[in-house]
Amino acid sequence: MTLAIDHLGIAVKSLAASKAIYEKLGCSISPEEVVEGEQVRLVMVPMGESRLELLEPTSENSAIAKFLAKRGEGLHHISLRVPDLTAVVERLKRENVRLVSNEIKIGAGGHRYVFIHPSSAGGVLLELVEGGH
Amino acid sequence: MTLAIDHLGIAVKSLAASKAIYEKLGCSISPEEVVEGEQVRLVMVPMGESRLELLEPTSENSAIAKFLAKRGEGLHHISLRVPDLTAVVERLKRENVRLVSNEIKIGAGGHRYVFIHPSSAGGVLLELVEGGH
Repeated sequence: MTLAIDHLGIAVKSLAASKAIYEKLGCSISPEEVVEGEQVRLVMVPMGESRLELLEPTSENSAIAKFLAKRGEGLHHISLRVPDLTAVVERLKRENVRLVSNEIKIGAGGHRYVFIHPSSAGGVLLELVEGGH
Repeated sequence: MTLAIDHLGIAVKSLAASKAIYEKLGCSISPEEVVEGEQVRLVMVPMGESRLELLEPTSENSAIAKFLAKRGEGLHHISLRVPDLTAVVERLKRENVRLVSNEIKIGAGGHRYVFIHPSSAGGVLLELVEGGH
């Protein structure tokens, strides 16, 4: 099956401080965007066919704020692009892979996604997202 | 500047256990390989233009063993491919970016690389590697 890295989600305390290294590397960086539903402010840094997503919490209740409190700054999730998410999820369930939620969800841009629990993926929170970005 | 994700290094306790999720996703996985200098055993999982590197320590003294003891399983580093490493490193030094080592090193396959310290990169250990993989 053809997979690719769609994006890497990186939890940071401050977008301004964290995007500096990518500016110094000469990368283009998207304007800041707030995603109310996730209580985060983010910028995206395109990297070839992938991108980095720097995520700063806008509320103490956001999942990213809780992650920062527990683990500090760093990688929050790896997102892989798959062609047919329904078929993949059925297969993973048959093989007893632990998903964070058993239902496929609809995210930004209408994309369908699930998260595989880190206990089933070498300590990494692994997102599967259908199609391109 | 054109950057791309060369690979993601993921520290795991057991290659056998951790590669299972990628087998279930239908990914191809390289044969296991031991890198004596780094005291690790690894497999690579190609992902489009990038790849995942699953890293299992072969000794308690390896950097990966120390990482696992301190942080548990998960992402160890993000490696970005840059076209001209010498120019990039000179620029980063001028801008007072903290590097793990000030000298460019030669790694597997003769590739030149440096690591940017997590304190300068949003909590992520960021490797810069020159050229392709």
